[in-house]
Amino acid sequence: MAAVFRSSLKLRTATRLSAVRPLSTTAHLRAAEKPFFPDEPTAPKLATAIPGPNNKAAAQKLDQVFDVRSLNMLADYYKSTGNYIADTDGNLLLDVYAQIASIPVGYNNPHLRKVAESPEMVNALINRPALGNFPSHDWADILNTGILKVAPKGLNQVFTALAGSDANETAYKAAFMYYRQRERGGAEKEFTEEELQTTMNNQSPGSPQLSIMSFKSAFHGRLFGSLSTTRSKPIHKLDIPAFDWPQAPFPSLKYPLEEHAAENAQEEQRCLQEVERLIKEFHNPVAAVVVEPIQSEGGDNHASPAFFQGLRDITKRHNVLFIVDEVQTGVGATGKFWAHDHWNLATPPDIVTFSKKAQTAGYYYGNPALRPNKPYRQFNTWMGDPARALIFRGITEEIERLNLVENTAITGDYLFAGLERLAKQYPEHLQNLRGKGQGTFIAWDSPKRDEFLAKAKNVGVNIGGSGQSAVRLRPMLIFQKHHADILLESVEKIIKQL
Amino acid sequence: MAAVFRSSLKLRTATRLSAVRPLSTTAHLRAAEKPFFPDEPTAPKLATAIPGPNNKAAAQKLDQVFDVRSLNMLADYYKSTGNYIADTDGNLLLDVYAQIASIPVGYNNPHLRKVAESPEMVNALINRPALGNFPSHDWADILNTGILKVAPKGLNQVFTALAGSDANETAYKAAFMYYRQRERGGAEKEFTEEELQTTMNNQSPGSPQLSIMSFKSAFHGRLFGSLSTTRSKPIHKLDIPAFDWPQAPFPSLKYPLEEHAAENAQEEQRCLQEVERLIKEFHNPVAAVVVEPIQSEGGDNHASPAFFQGLRDITKRHNVLFIVDEVQTGVGATGKFWAHDHWNLATPPDIVTFSKKAQTAGYYYGNPALRPNKPYRQFNTWMGDPARALIFRGITEEIERLNLVENTAITGDYLFAGLERLAKQYPEHLQNLRGKGQGTFIAWDSPKRDEFLAKAKNVGVNIGGSGQSAVRLRPMLIFQKHHADILLESVEKIIKQL
Repeated sequence: MAAVFRSSLKLRTATRLSAVRPLSTTAHLRAAEKPFFPDEPTAPKLATAIPGPNNKAAAQKLDQVFDVRSLNMLADYYKSTGNYIADTDGNLLLDVYAQIASIPVGYNNPHLRKVAESPEMVNALINRPALGNFPSHDWADILNTGILKVAPKGLNQVFTALAGSDANETAYKAAFMYYRQRERGGAEKEFTEEELQTTMNNQSPGSPQLSIMSFKSAFHGRLFGSLSTTRSKPIHKLDIPAFDWPQAPFPSLKYPLEEHAAENAQEEQRCLQEVERLIKEFHNPVAAVVVEPIQSEGGDNHASPAFFQGLRDITKRHNVLFIVDEVQTGVGATGKFWAHDHWNLATPPDIVTFSKKAQTAGYYYGNPALRPNKPYRQFNTWMGDPARALIFRGITEEIERLNLVENTAITGDYLFAGLERLAKQYPEHLQNLRGKGQGTFIAWDSPKRDEFLAKAKNVGVNIGGSGQSAVRLRPMLIFQKHHADILLESVEKIIKQL
Repeated sequence: MAAVFRSSLKLRTATRLSAVRPLSTTAHLRAAEKPFFPDEPTAPKLATAIPGPNNKAAAQKLDQVFDVRSLNMLADYYKSTGNYIADTDGNLLLDVYAQIASIPVGYNNPHLRKVAESPEMVNALINRPALGNFPSHDWADILNTGILKVAPKGLNQVFTALAGSDANETAYKAAFMYYRQRERGGAEKEFTEEELQTTMNNQSPGSPQLSIMSFKSAFHGRLFGSLSTTRSKPIHKLDIPAFDWPQAPFPSLKYPLEEHAAENAQEEQRCLQEVERLIKEFHNPVAAVVVEPIQSEGGDNHASPAFFQGLRDITKRHNVLFIVDEVQTGVGATGKFWAHDHWNLATPPDIVTFSKKAQTAGYYYGNPALRPNKPYRQFNTWMGDPARALIFRGITEEIERLNLVENTAITGDYLFAGLERLAKQYPEHLQNLRGKGQGTFIAWDSPKRDEFLAKAKNVGVNIGGSGQSAVRLRPMLIFQKHHADILLESVEKIIKQL
């Protein structure tokens, strides 16, 4: 990293050199906070138009063996550092997309480097255990000092997984087993001969026609079960067989919130009523409701704590599990460690799933009855990856050391205030600004969204979109006020070019 | 590792010491081959009854946060080496289960250690890319020198994944998209408005009622789509909703094969006819047939090359994709790099999936039309893990350096011959011996299978089972004749205790 920083400095001081254009060199001075990473560059730098010639050539090479049509850019991670992502043409962009909201503590974070170089890591990499059969003797310690140390309140157990999709799907499986166990009259009740036989033919009652309810515009993954609960865009779902599962409307709130309080409350009530109606009436009985605290892929759609409290009440009343999918919202980005911490629920969710910023995945639960009544019902070869669990532990240590959840709350407020000013100045380009008090989990709608995102790179910023028209900000937890200043300046520059 | 070896030696020479019982100390002398790992112990050693007191205490601790009912043993991977797995009580077992058939080149393999300590690995661990959007500049190189260097003949493309389940499910998705694209009349044909709308409700035609055909006793994973093709045991499937997909009979062969040639050929014909009938008649049209070269989890069920050639013919004739699931059979264990190399197919399978010994996962394909017609149709956040892809590359290097596929073929023949002798001697305990000419991918049926497996540990060997009554051998690729001698001796010891 030091080497990266030096070469970056060299480029910055050599501003007269041809294509190198340093941006916002004084931005960091305006913010009071000391940078977390002293080696981090102070501004983006642009060496070529983006994509540059190296990027194009490398993409062509990769395309021969790997589908690159969704390629955003080829990155040089050796040269990336902190909040800055490097490409292969000498460009260094302030990264407020952070892969797909999945980098928490910066590229080439020095503490994670130590974790990656540790004997524990080498051991986990070269002796990969089948965690259900042959866990390592220190697996309980790795869990207790990492994944479980940051478990949501009230949930003290975990089933580990590899990514958001299988975290959600194994959570759904737990919900179905729990539902049928309750119907059967308890964990000690044996399966019937008919169940044992029909399930081998994928038929009811052994393979029951139960369902998971999700919400319009939800995203929960793209394997067959998770995709059946995903309702984001047709392109995610077309041509893939799906289960006949219900979807409820998700509140469509109006902004600014303070001007539409009564209307929004009514909209949330409407949605809750429909949730309850579907639970009572849908032809395939609902074993669980799954919801994102903020619908991310679907366009950054928010709802109030009251809505989620209502969901918790309804699901409890009808003996339906309440699964909170924190794959994108979890691990600090909303200014709380878990986004559902904002809700002040009377009783915790039954299951919370996680992935992305955690670098590993799984589902938390608290009720011991959610462990299936027999071994091998919830099982697979690896059941996660200790190497990635060690990285998550390092991330939690870094979050604690630097107080990054609080940082994200504070920086988020600062950034939101700046965006509010821009929204007033450019109301046609910055609409429905949302995410106030939600850390840096901020978004707005732009009628020229795709153009906005494309232009962002050439002012030195990497930004992502969500839904049809949202610009979504997903900076890392090490995003500070001086980065916010650069971002605000960049947003204004882009708008002026639209 | 050296330290482990020394302490093992110390224990072996101190045979008069209390509980330490060295086994087969001269076994290695009988085999001519030079050991691949000079530091490897020459025999198992037993320090306590298994499970020992430390194991029991650690399991109790782990149980507080993680379901341990499927626990086989808690391992100390720091003390494991080569073919030997250590527990926490000082026991060291010859491991012919190798996690769940997923360790290829030995515990603490020195070459993999170098890979794990390399700057590339550290980079991959701490800067985890979203491979579809922001692959690293060297991702093409990592693929070409690793995953793709060992690609099955005729398949030069890969979609990377994290484990066997998602490898299979993304392969199924590719098959469904391909099927509908053909129905629509080509890649350039646009989706209809009806498709775009119905898929958001999980309804046909947007979410079509197509199917994947699998075989009785098959195992292809445990997420919702893969579980719908898994037909191994009720406990894997009960209470989980499943798609209405067809299953064909898998040949039930009689052993020894040479005594039942005509009968077995007829049985295979019967199964092929049923496959063809189902393709023609099943109410949910079949987009692909998926098959394991050897049904592993389902009980080590084999079929002849003629059967698989027949499958290839039928699927080709009916425009149905032929997916070969090499998750357990791939990467050398059958004495060929891919088990389907044994079949001499006229045209390659359409898709081959892999995981386990590869430590990473994905599906190979060759036909460019299997890339969906638009970006983001086959996509997820991580799409694999470069850290695990680097480990696979290291494994392929080690396989090449030590000629491990050939070793497995040779050792397998040697082991099989030894087991044939035992089968003659103990016909009641060693039935339906199978896997001749299939490397070390060997199994037999035992009426007292569970007892056999339980006793194995206390003679110093870790062995797994499959199906209802099979003892399945899944040694690593570094399993040599001197290990086979120890195993054969151990099998006889166990049988004498039954």
